[in-house]
Amino acid sequence: MQTIAERTKSPEEIAPLKGQDLLATIHSPTDVKALSVEQLPDLAEAIREFLIDSVSKTGGHLAPNLGTVELTIALHRVFNSLEDKIVWDVGAQAYPHKILTGRREQFHTLRKFHGISGFPRRSESPHDHFGTGHSSTSISVALGMALARDLKGETCNVMAAIGDGGLTGGVALEGLNHAGRLDTNFLVILNDNAMAISPNLGGWASYLNRIITGQVYNRFSEELEKILLRIPAIGEWVQKGALKLAEVCKGLMIPGLLFEELGFRYFGPIDGHDLKALVDTFENVRQLKGPILVHVLTEKGRGYKPAESDPTTYHGLSAFDRVTGQIVKRPGWTYTSVFGKTVCRMAEKNPDVTAITAAMAPGTGLVEFSERFPERFFDVAIAEQHAVDLAAGLAVNGKRPVVAIYSTFLQRAFDQVYHDVCIENLPVIFAMDRAGVIGADGATHQGLYDIAFLRSMPNMVLCAPSNERELVQMLWTGLAHNGPFAVRYPRIFGTGVAWEPEEPPLPIGKGDVLHEGTRLAILALGTMVEFARETAALLASSGLDPTVVNMRFVKPLDRDLLRQLAQTHTHFVTYEDHVLDGGFGGAVCEALEDEGLHDISVMRLGLPDRVIEHGSREEIFGEYGLLPSQVAPRVSRFVLNARFAY
Amino acid sequence: MQTIAERTKSPEEIAPLKGQDLLATIHSPTDVKALSVEQLPDLAEAIREFLIDSVSKTGGHLAPNLGTVELTIALHRVFNSLEDKIVWDVGAQAYPHKILTGRREQFHTLRKFHGISGFPRRSESPHDHFGTGHSSTSISVALGMALARDLKGETCNVMAAIGDGGLTGGVALEGLNHAGRLDTNFLVILNDNAMAISPNLGGWASYLNRIITGQVYNRFSEELEKILLRIPAIGEWVQKGALKLAEVCKGLMIPGLLFEELGFRYFGPIDGHDLKALVDTFENVRQLKGPILVHVLTEKGRGYKPAESDPTTYHGLSAFDRVTGQIVKRPGWTYTSVFGKTVCRMAEKNPDVTAITAAMAPGTGLVEFSERFPERFFDVAIAEQHAVDLAAGLAVNGKRPVVAIYSTFLQRAFDQVYHDVCIENLPVIFAMDRAGVIGADGATHQGLYDIAFLRSMPNMVLCAPSNERELVQMLWTGLAHNGPFAVRYPRIFGTGVAWEPEEPPLPIGKGDVLHEGTRLAILALGTMVEFARETAALLASSGLDPTVVNMRFVKPLDRDLLRQLAQTHTHFVTYEDHVLDGGFGGAVCEALEDEGLHDISVMRLGLPDRVIEHGSREEIFGEYGLLPSQVAPRVSRFVLNARFAY
Repeated sequence: MQTIAERTKSPEEIAPLKGQDLLATIHSPTDVKALSVEQLPDLAEAIREFLIDSVSKTGGHLAPNLGTVELTIALHRVFNSLEDKIVWDVGAQAYPHKILTGRREQFHTLRKFHGISGFPRRSESPHDHFGTGHSSTSISVALGMALARDLKGETCNVMAAIGDGGLTGGVALEGLNHAGRLDTNFLVILNDNAMAISPNLGGWASYLNRIITGQVYNRFSEELEKILLRIPAIGEWVQKGALKLAEVCKGLMIPGLLFEELGFRYFGPIDGHDLKALVDTFENVRQLKGPILVHVLTEKGRGYKPAESDPTTYHGLSAFDRVTGQIVKRPGWTYTSVFGKTVCRMAEKNPDVTAITAAMAPGTGLVEFSERFPERFFDVAIAEQHAVDLAAGLAVNGKRPVVAIYSTFLQRAFDQVYHDVCIENLPVIFAMDRAGVIGADGATHQGLYDIAFLRSMPNMVLCAPSNERELVQMLWTGLAHNGPFAVRYPRIFGTGVAWEPEEPPLPIGKGDVLHEGTRLAILALGTMVEFARETAALLASSGLDPTVVNMRFVKPLDRDLLRQLAQTHTHFVTYEDHVLDGGFGGAVCEALEDEGLHDISVMRLGLPDRVIEHGSREEIFGEYGLLPSQVAPRVSRFVLNARFAY
Repeated sequence: MQTIAERTKSPEEIAPLKGQDLLATIHSPTDVKALSVEQLPDLAEAIREFLIDSVSKTGGHLAPNLGTVELTIALHRVFNSLEDKIVWDVGAQAYPHKILTGRREQFHTLRKFHGISGFPRRSESPHDHFGTGHSSTSISVALGMALARDLKGETCNVMAAIGDGGLTGGVALEGLNHAGRLDTNFLVILNDNAMAISPNLGGWASYLNRIITGQVYNRFSEELEKILLRIPAIGEWVQKGALKLAEVCKGLMIPGLLFEELGFRYFGPIDGHDLKALVDTFENVRQLKGPILVHVLTEKGRGYKPAESDPTTYHGLSAFDRVTGQIVKRPGWTYTSVFGKTVCRMAEKNPDVTAITAAMAPGTGLVEFSERFPERFFDVAIAEQHAVDLAAGLAVNGKRPVVAIYSTFLQRAFDQVYHDVCIENLPVIFAMDRAGVIGADGATHQGLYDIAFLRSMPNMVLCAPSNERELVQMLWTGLAHNGPFAVRYPRIFGTGVAWEPEEPPLPIGKGDVLHEGTRLAILALGTMVEFARETAALLASSGLDPTVVNMRFVKPLDRDLLRQLAQTHTHFVTYEDHVLDGGFGGAVCEALEDEGLHDISVMRLGLPDRVIEHGSREEIFGEYGLLPSQVAPRVSRFVLNARFAY
């Protein structure tokens, strides 16, 4: 492998290069600064080609990254990203940033086990100043950095690059509110990627759209005309058309008035694919003081036809054919799609059923629902807290809301779950997708904490299905239950069992004994039930015949069953797709002590107390010794040998 | 006691009544509607007098309720609160609403055990349409109610009454964003109580202030002048002063433009103590369609001099002398005040120490810090998510932020704790005040869930002091630790031990054996250590000599100590000021199973799995059998009798 010094070419050598040859000369932002201005569009082109090629093989986020190519080049052209701090909101659009900061050659490992992350990570590069993944955090984090800079008497630039979607999140609006009243030098780059013209993003998005289309002026033009007509002499000029009201209003109205009123100096809207305009703007604003907002218009999927015409599908995806754009689709039902079918049937049967998503209709399986029951479907934009409180309001007034949300994003509405749903004991169903080990999205998106935070909540019922059919059963159980109800399921395909979108409800708080064995009982939850079966099969060779239990409910826990099993078994193994601290196994330990069942030895299997990174579910389970092939020998020793030996 | 029928007087009988005689005739909003318009100010006067008298005896929220008297009368005059739905944000300003809806005679039981709540509660009255307590939820909840109404084809009015402070909370801004793009008939009453003029409430508050003071016009006046001067003939008129630009601008500028741009029709600002203006406005807007925002200006503490001049002190308080305004103050140090002194000393010694509060400087003990270290103090308004992310940004850039926050409000930033502090492993100290049983504030404010949600977090250290000195030690321990660190302490006075604001750090994850006994070990956390000592003393009469341990740390848990104790004891009792599910006792159960220490019998003492209501800490502990006098006999049976008998 060549060293960077060996690979560095002179400007004369670089000048004639194009495409991947040009890109290959870029090892750090310094190299971007060394290019001629004329070469920047070529660099953008090369990054796009690289992105499309690379993501078509690895999968990952495509459309948002195609939208930020020029923006990223311009930022690295103007700022010094080792000194100046860029916080990329959500982080899924930071691929061009990674490519320009020395990670191009690792890009084939993107989102792979031990490979580079799909999001900025401080551990990965000194150019990544903060880890992101969840939306809307960048303004607050960057503002903290800026205030620390001021206290230290330093002068670097600090900036948050946030999408119009991210701006609807409460924490972003809180941050904007705070930043606007400070004198701190602070830059917000609003990456308005034209998704905002979808009306369902709310008042802010609609406002941004009116800026872009010039409608902001119109209201004033009309108002001004009314007033001026009343003033003699002036009125004449107006009536004659000699007074160009539109011109007056354009001069009068600052397009970003809302931002100005909140304390920011507004610049924009700027074409986010015009490198010269971007570079000029950033060169200008980097000299200015106080809070500044630059409004940049970008196009998601820019430069790749399939992504331009369907940016939602190409937002984040698995591998695809880069020529046809065809995405490799595996046949079968995911838990997400089973949920989607079931919630539609629930809505058919019960007119009170409503569904809520926080800007995740495709991800949570609600597209069919949104088309068939538009009046009962609410996409509230990236606003999880509001999603849960809206559900509380719907429920208290007689509706049966289903909040379809990723486990990791429900963390953002934890207080609303407690304060507005659980205290009020309202019938809200939380359909928690992406629960358990998440896979390629990694640390920020792990669904590994929901049991810990939900099982402490009063009035909550919490369960997890072991297959598709059980998910259907649990959703109907939730609908039949008059109180808060949460069901957690992972981002994987089901086991392939037969199922219908309507199934009879299950008895709440009752487990299901799948096999009656002796001595050892494996108590499994959710998708770990399959692992438990496999483990049991492997244990046969050790002469063990374990009882296998699908516990189904974490809360209420089936204490009757635990008492029964305790009479005929000596060892329990708990098996969960969740961290061990405060999880399902912990609930079993608590119950056994409460019931005075001290004779049972318990071994808990689950994720350890550390940040769990990206990788396939199999790789992550393997890393932590949770695959049946790894578990079986440990369990065997636990039961057969000295009890302290495991 | 008279029935309502017996107490009902004719309009002729009521007409001459004043003061408490007039108020005594009001048993429901119907009676408010029956009064003549001229009597309404008298009613307001009577409510104020009643409030001051009543709260001076019971304690509670005073200043906010004195501010909403006329607003509440007007709402009940115009709307039908059984049919129309008013959601009171925060709820601490709903006393006039309670008085007018049949709860005046129970007001002496306010915030008392089994008495009426200090917040709206659905269980208390059909006029309370939702429970509140935490800020900023009302818009989202009420919007959900409005959408449910539309789906049901009903026509009632639905409204959220929210303060300018509450409007800075992320969930409120999310709700506003969503409501503004819907056609739903929906009313937001912005109760702008003049606290917003404090500059530290951020951009929105400063904007509201500019509306009130007319400054919104000025910018336009100047801009318009510049433009018009350039137009021949018009320019002359302008220069001569014949064109009254201020007038033009006033007509041109809608004061609530921001709200209009977000999709609301804006009405205001309206004098919130002018009953006629309020009634007229509400009569007008109740007929209108779509989202409407009425901006009402009120004065906190209105009508009670001490509260008018110091609304912060009289916001929420204990009993006071209504003539002098003197608040009954108990001597001694609360944990809050010990924290306040300690964090100042930390800031003296370490220039990197910064402190953050979300609009709770007095409540969290940060007033002295804010005065002595203003440049290192950040009051971010009611914005807990932003507070935590701001801390993350400060920490990643070299500062040592201390987030002083109530346990119950940290729930709102749970995702930020995980995503931005724990994954990043940043040295942020969470000083969690009001942990454990809260007392008079009741269900919404219980600090009973923090252990469950924080101990699942990677990299987190979590501890609880048993006295003032230990709080100081733990804070310095946090400062010496390079990672997330949370300390939980209750809203009570300390034990009276000697302490200095600087103490050597404690070893992380190590418990402290206070007394070495035999057979039974009581493992206590935080303030339960005192209860454990008392229980141990009571157990002497049963012939028991329990070991008493101050565990100090929940995470990491002192497993070495547990192993040692397991060798010499047969029974453990865990004692915590937290719910049992997923709490400290659960952590002990998990550890014992992990360590193979199955011979130990464990009894867990803590709050049960239900909504815990208001009452003094002693009353609540008594209700759930957690006082030492109640615990001792149970523990005695646990150790001495059949193990299943407790």
